[in-house]
Amino acid sequence: MPEAKTATANAVPAAQAKQSAQQRKPVITVIGGGSGRFTLLEGLKLLPVQINAIVTMTDSGGSSGRLRTELGVLPPGDVRQCLVALSNSPKLMLDLFNYRFENGSSLSGHNFGNLFLTALEKTTGSFEKAIDEAGRMLDIAGNVIPVTLDKSELCAELADGSIIKGEANIDVPKGKRSKIKRVFLLPDAKATQKALDAIASSDLIVIGPGDLYTSIIPNLLVAGTGKAICASKAKKVFVLPIATKHGETDGFAAKDFVLEIEKYAGCKMDVVVANSTAFSVGMKEKYATEGAAQVLASPGEFSGYAFVGADLLSGSGKLARHDANKIAAVVLNLVGSK
Amino acid sequence: MPEAKTATANAVPAAQAKQSAQQRKPVITVIGGGSGRFTLLEGLKLLPVQINAIVTMTDSGGSSGRLRTELGVLPPGDVRQCLVALSNSPKLMLDLFNYRFENGSSLSGHNFGNLFLTALEKTTGSFEKAIDEAGRMLDIAGNVIPVTLDKSELCAELADGSIIKGEANIDVPKGKRSKIKRVFLLPDAKATQKALDAIASSDLIVIGPGDLYTSIIPNLLVAGTGKAICASKAKKVFVLPIATKHGETDGFAAKDFVLEIEKYAGCKMDVVVANSTAFSVGMKEKYATEGAAQVLASPGEFSGYAFVGADLLSGSGKLARHDANKIAAVVLNLVGSK
Repeated sequence: MPEAKTATANAVPAAQAKQSAQQRKPVITVIGGGSGRFTLLEGLKLLPVQINAIVTMTDSGGSSGRLRTELGVLPPGDVRQCLVALSNSPKLMLDLFNYRFENGSSLSGHNFGNLFLTALEKTTGSFEKAIDEAGRMLDIAGNVIPVTLDKSELCAELADGSIIKGEANIDVPKGKRSKIKRVFLLPDAKATQKALDAIASSDLIVIGPGDLYTSIIPNLLVAGTGKAICASKAKKVFVLPIATKHGETDGFAAKDFVLEIEKYAGCKMDVVVANSTAFSVGMKEKYATEGAAQVLASPGEFSGYAFVGADLLSGSGKLARHDANKIAAVVLNLVGSK
Repeated sequence: MPEAKTATANAVPAAQAKQSAQQRKPVITVIGGGSGRFTLLEGLKLLPVQINAIVTMTDSGGSSGRLRTELGVLPPGDVRQCLVALSNSPKLMLDLFNYRFENGSSLSGHNFGNLFLTALEKTTGSFEKAIDEAGRMLDIAGNVIPVTLDKSELCAELADGSIIKGEANIDVPKGKRSKIKRVFLLPDAKATQKALDAIASSDLIVIGPGDLYTSIIPNLLVAGTGKAICASKAKKVFVLPIATKHGETDGFAAKDFVLEIEKYAGCKMDVVVANSTAFSVGMKEKYATEGAAQVLASPGEFSGYAFVGADLLSGSGKLARHDANKIAAVVLNLVGSK
């Protein structure tokens, strides 16, 4: 019975193909920084998606900065945050990884997770291997990928022509200073193949949340990333920050953030996501004392983009923060939409 | 058929009892220190025995000493060595645990494993929990048990009446000094229940190898351990060191070591184990330049003891070290013997 045989032979691959399509989770690549990215990754971890977290290597402050300078390693702090955000390990392991040695010791201010990654980089001889090993030990859901393995400093040219060298010096302004005109890397840095592959294979590339010039754009300054983002078939999503940041984005309107990202990426975003819940008077005043203001966006400003305005704020806390479940749900919803 | 039923009912427990006896591995508790203990534990790990490693808490030198002083934790160095010796983890994990941060950094000389145990003690709030967690992560065969959780300094009274405070100061003599008359703890320390239970449940208690006054006797100074050793049904084995140690046991004959141990323990040893292979002329000269001499023992000196003289030296290396398999085989052999 050749017909029957043919039917059976066809049936199996068809079933396999269907199963394979069902099994393939949408791939989401996150390019951001700080607490906003941490929250987004924590939220996405619980959803049926494949996560890539791309991490800038220009952090020069605190424990990471000291390890860079003293031991010549790549800065581990941002990698550690992503590993913890994506980890399925028990709380004890995460407490350990986040533990910061107390003042008064020679270890003062060093974060255990940073020392862990540093010692792993030293013993494996490779920062990427160190991340892989740490990810395995922490049982992470997803991939944490350094955008580059080249050692490079983030620099900013201000409107008055002066140059600030080092991410930490740009991040925390020392007194009043002129507006940032542009940021650049010194020396140039080249993207890792893993970062380029992650971007190319994504269904969704989520840029933000994070500090514009010190967390997000340093990724776009690495040679190859902008081109890969623009060439990717992925939907390109920009998540607006909740508030401006003093010394970086003072006076920025919602559209200014998007235009700046597009300038450095080299192409247009497809979707803009914004928090739509206004600050209370108290919160507004609190942020004003820090030289910051809420970023509010209306759909009208974003014709030519898909615009998603939603309540993204966490109900608790003294700072306005993204809520993990709310922001992850918005992002997941974008995977299937046109 | 009541008889048949009775027979069956009896048969099961009998079989179980036999199986249980077969499954019960002999319990060996090791009280020692340094490279000798490390080697013995490495050797025993491969054998069908249950291992307890009891660890002194008076180490005050190097990385451990700094962590004690600066962060108020118990000294992690000896625990780390035992964990690594008993670990079944891949080499990478052990390399990581043993990794020592290089000079020129604020972390200089700190051992990653020590920082790991310190951060775990800080996050779990308990040194014993930290050891349990680290043991689980390193997949250790056996138990590593601190002899006390009390913070105490090892002190030595010399023959000239002067007092030396701190294990590191006793361990490494600063210039010529008078003979050690006695060692003591300041303040007193109390044995952990785990240490007492381990000693009580042992089939064999192996004291040594290790430095007499700085590694072994500090365990016997802890209130409760000597009494527990003497009360235990376990066979008490003393492993003689390969050589004397300058500043601690200069001029000691084999019997002097045993008598000193018995004085601090409060009872007689059952077995004395000694290396029987004489040093080469080159090795003898090498040790002489460090103020040390080989410890050689003959059965005649040890009437009233079971005496085991055997070749225990490792064939390789520039220092005379115990060979893991040779010493472990001798110890295992003592489990079954009368």
